Amino acid sequence: MGVVVNIDDGKRTSASIEDLIALTRQDMGRVNELILSKAGSDVTMIPEVANHLISSGGKRLRPMLTLAAAQMFGYEGDGHVKLATSVEFMHTATLLHDDVVDESDMRRGKRTARMIWGNQASVLVGDFLLGQAFRMMVDVGSLEALDILSAAASVIAEGEVLQLSVAKNLETTEDEYLSVIKAKTAALFSAAAEVGPVVADATKADRAALRSYGTNLGLAFQLIDDALDYAGDTSSLGKNVGDDFREGKVTLPVILSFRRGSEEEREFWKSAIEKDQTDDEQLEFALKLMKKHNSIADTIGRARHFGGIARDALAPLKDTPQKQALLDVIDFCISRVT
Amino acid sequence: MGVVVNIDDGKRTSASIEDLIALTRQDMGRVNELILSKAGSDVTMIPEVANHLISSGGKRLRPMLTLAAAQMFGYEGDGHVKLATSVEFMHTATLLHDDVVDESDMRRGKRTARMIWGNQASVLVGDFLLGQAFRMMVDVGSLEALDILSAAASVIAEGEVLQLSVAKNLETTEDEYLSVIKAKTAALFSAAAEVGPVVADATKADRAALRSYGTNLGLAFQLIDDALDYAGDTSSLGKNVGDDFREGKVTLPVILSFRRGSEEEREFWKSAIEKDQTDDEQLEFALKLMKKHNSIADTIGRARHFGGIARDALAPLKDTPQKQALLDVIDFCISRVT
Repeated sequence: MGVVVNIDDGKRTSASIEDLIALTRQDMGRVNELILSKAGSDVTMIPEVANHLISSGGKRLRPMLTLAAAQMFGYEGDGHVKLATSVEFMHTATLLHDDVVDESDMRRGKRTARMIWGNQASVLVGDFLLGQAFRMMVDVGSLEALDILSAAASVIAEGEVLQLSVAKNLETTEDEYLSVIKAKTAALFSAAAEVGPVVADATKADRAALRSYGTNLGLAFQLIDDALDYAGDTSSLGKNVGDDFREGKVTLPVILSFRRGSEEEREFWKSAIEKDQTDDEQLEFALKLMKKHNSIADTIGRARHFGGIARDALAPLKDTPQKQALLDVIDFCISRVT
Repeated sequence: MGVVVNIDDGKRTSASIEDLIALTRQDMGRVNELILSKAGSDVTMIPEVANHLISSGGKRLRPMLTLAAAQMFGYEGDGHVKLATSVEFMHTATLLHDDVVDESDMRRGKRTARMIWGNQASVLVGDFLLGQAFRMMVDVGSLEALDILSAAASVIAEGEVLQLSVAKNLETTEDEYLSVIKAKTAALFSAAAEVGPVVADATKADRAALRSYGTNLGLAFQLIDDALDYAGDTSSLGKNVGDDFREGKVTLPVILSFRRGSEEEREFWKSAIEKDQTDDEQLEFALKLMKKHNSIADTIGRARHFGGIARDALAPLKDTPQKQALLDVIDFCISRVT
């Protein structure tokens, strides 16, 4: 290990989601309409809270995956629009609940819903969005898609609970951490990608390919997110370098630095993560240790490993603009920086 | 992807299991005695069949892992010898059963037990060894070790069944294949390593570290095995290059070549794997396709990824000769060739 990977390496014109955005533009228009209508309620606090997060400028990558994955197999109905909206609602609900659990003040450069409307409203509006997501899935009428997305909902919740149990635990192994992000992040990417071929009545092999693509893309995405938190540029992240550190989150760069470190270095990590000693000076020292142990470069290396698996998952599928756009997403995720 | 990895790269003096052998020599003497005595039975066919495989020159890597992992935490009893013997019996039972399931004629350069004594004897002697393994575990009296090893026994069997369902299925994704080898191979490596700290009453973190080490070492080991089957030297393998191909096994080099190949190339793989068109000419073409698509190099690359995780798993443990020997095993597995 210890290969120095320049985080800028993957930057080239194809490492963008422009093609994905173009291919799904029309369908995403319908998703956005559906989001607004299904987040609506006579209880005015519901659309207020929901729209605060929904309109906060997320990339809406997950619903685009669903749309492109359905288009790829020639789907012509409107079920994919509803499923894509369900996926985005599941994601939004998770974020609302996460911010409560993590006691976060800021997300995407804005105050979190819980800081404005309180924890209770955040939890309940999240529940409402989950309920609406299930109603839309039922409306599509595909038991298989329902099975995939409802299983994902359970797995995500399970992953969040698992994360509680590893929180602030510096002894967490890389395997254990991968289990957490596989559940917490990769499960929704996987379900989002798989319901495309499902609604389009594609083959079992096509479903497996998209499922595998989604899982591994999700793992790569999360690992790059972890790396960016220590290596990125604030303006493009919507969060500050070191946010994970200040919140005492045990992510892969921390796990690798802790495991590879000396006894003294491990004491530093304990005081930082377990005892919240995370001011700027300590962040600077953390970054120095990460550099010493190649922790960020190796985190990116691990992400590249999963990116490679995602790429091979799609390899046997017919060449379509959608397939190329989904492959670009892998490069985009990995080269995502400033 | 597509990095060309020279299979010889990792070869250096430390890439050997000499230190592991030396450190466990005394304990392995007791394991070997126990193997002979516990494979004994008044039913003379049992020791005949068992010893045929037991004396066929396997490296006994798994029991050495258990012994070294127990020594590492200062264990001084004799439970680790019994657990190591149980691990080896579980492994032997799996091989006996595998050869029946795969209808194999040769193993480690010798005729398989089933070719000499028949399928029934192979199945039943495997069952007997499994039974003896459990009796030895019970004898040690550690419920935790029993829990770990009995769970592994179930997972291994589950993995074998899963393998049946993916057998000859060229659409198998890399993820699905990894699930198979995680169960079929890595689970026993993982249990073998974890029961060491368990019997030595080490901490939970130490157990997790050895478990993770074992899992990832097992994955790396199996992937290198897969690569060697297409890239290795016959004399050191005890099997011939292309054995997996002739048996129509869908291993990672095949999966990558199939997925990355053209429509015509996929037709070739189908005729080879699904229709048993696997003579020397076809093997040569298969090797050519693997070269074209970097399938063997990338299989080794994936193994290196898991090797890296195994290495980081052990990183925080106190420096001991045993720790160093276990780290050497990773390099040995990856550089294993001629």
